[in-house]
Amino acid sequence: MPEFTPTERSRVRRRPQRAAYDEATVYKVLDAGILAHVGYVLDGQPFVTPTAYWRKGRRLYWHGAAASRMLRAVGEGQPVCLTVSFLDGFVLARSGFRHSLNYRSVLAFGRARLVEDLEAKRLAMDDFIERLYPGRTTSLRPATEAELKQIALAEMTIEEASAKQRAGGPIDYAPDEGWPAWWGEIPLDQRLGAPKPAGLAAGAAPRVALEAEAPCAFPF
Amino acid sequence: MPEFTPTERSRVRRRPQRAAYDEATVYKVLDAGILAHVGYVLDGQPFVTPTAYWRKGRRLYWHGAAASRMLRAVGEGQPVCLTVSFLDGFVLARSGFRHSLNYRSVLAFGRARLVEDLEAKRLAMDDFIERLYPGRTTSLRPATEAELKQIALAEMTIEEASAKQRAGGPIDYAPDEGWPAWWGEIPLDQRLGAPKPAGLAAGAAPRVALEAEAPCAFPF
Repeated sequence: MPEFTPTERSRVRRRPQRAAYDEATVYKVLDAGILAHVGYVLDGQPFVTPTAYWRKGRRLYWHGAAASRMLRAVGEGQPVCLTVSFLDGFVLARSGFRHSLNYRSVLAFGRARLVEDLEAKRLAMDDFIERLYPGRTTSLRPATEAELKQIALAEMTIEEASAKQRAGGPIDYAPDEGWPAWWGEIPLDQRLGAPKPAGLAAGAAPRVALEAEAPCAFPF
Repeated sequence: MPEFTPTERSRVRRRPQRAAYDEATVYKVLDAGILAHVGYVLDGQPFVTPTAYWRKGRRLYWHGAAASRMLRAVGEGQPVCLTVSFLDGFVLARSGFRHSLNYRSVLAFGRARLVEDLEAKRLAMDDFIERLYPGRTTSLRPATEAELKQIALAEMTIEEASAKQRAGGPIDYAPDEGWPAWWGEIPLDQRLGAPKPAGLAAGAAPRVALEAEAPCAFPF
C-alpha cells in the first residue's frame, strides 16, 4: 500500500495510534471533503482561508478570483498546509477531563503553482463540477475564454500528508465510576435539505455527491 | 455597534459586499462553531490544526495536551489566524462558472498565551463543557489537579477579525438563459444522530448546543 513518508513536519506526535500515512486513508478523507482550510504565510503572518477543493491523483486543486490575495500568495510557491476535517460526533464521559470528539482530519503539505493554460483550467473546472454533481457538466453552458481568464486555479502536489481520526464512545476510566452522569456518544452528520429551484428550473435537482464514492479516474 | 478595525491583514478584498467587521456578526459565527482551524508558523512552514474552541468576550480558547506542538508553538506568542467556517449549501447555476457555495466564515487574528493558573484552567474547561452541553458540569466528576496539569490551555485576545458570508440562490446571468440545466440552491445542515449510551448510562442524553444560542455571560 503506497504511503506518504512522514518527516518532522507531518509526523503525528499526539496520540500516534490515531494516525495514518497511507494513501488510501489520506485520500478517503480528502475525497469526502468539500471545504478545505488553506494555510499560508505572508510576511510571517499565517492566514487560514476556507475554500472548496478537489483531488486528482496526488494533486489537490482549489480556485478563486484571479485577483485573490490567497491565490497570488500560494501561486508563488510558498509552503502550504491544506487541512480537511470532519466533526463526526461528541464523546461524553462522566468527567469533563475525559470528554472527547470524534473526527477525521488530514493535513496535506506541499507547494502550489497557478495553472495558466486555459484548456487545463477548463478540464479542472469540469472535474470540480463532476466531483460535486456527477454527470452535470454535459448539461451546462460551457465556459468562455474570458471566464476562464478570470479564474485563478491552484494546483498542489502533496509532498507529505497525515490522517488522524477518532471514532467510538468514551473509554472506561476508573476514577469516573459511579458518577451519575450520562455517558456515551452522540453522532453528528451532514444532511442535504430540500432543493430550492430558481425560477423555472428544468427537471429534478442533481444529486450532490456529499461524500465522493470513487476517486477521480486518474492513476495514482 | 462595536467593530473590529480592519487593517491590511483582515480587510476582505474579494467580494467586500459579503464582509462584516462588527462584533455582533463576528461573534454570531464564532459562537455557532465547534471546530476551528488554527493556523500558525514554525520555521516558515504554515500548520493548520483543527481543534475545538470556545469564546468568552473578546477571547478565544482552545486546549490540548501539555506536550502538543501546536500549543507550545502558539503559547510562545507567535501570530495566529484562527478560522471558523460553515458550508451552508450548494448554489447551482446553468454554467459551471456561476456555481457557488453558501457559507459563513470568520478569520480571527491575534497572539495566544498559555494559561497556567489551575483555577483559571478549571473554570475555562467548565466553560467549554457548558458551551457544548448546557448545565452538564454540575453532574460530572470534578477535574483533579493532576488532570488540569496535563491540559495546555491557549487564550487568544482577538486583535482583528472579519466575517464573510454568502446566502441565497444563484444570481440570474444573461448568458446562461435558455440552458436546460436545473438551477437553484441545495441547503446543507448538520444534524445530531441518536445518542449511543455507554454501558448503563444514567438518565437521558444531554442536549448538545450545536449552535450556541446565547453568548457566554461575559461583558464585551
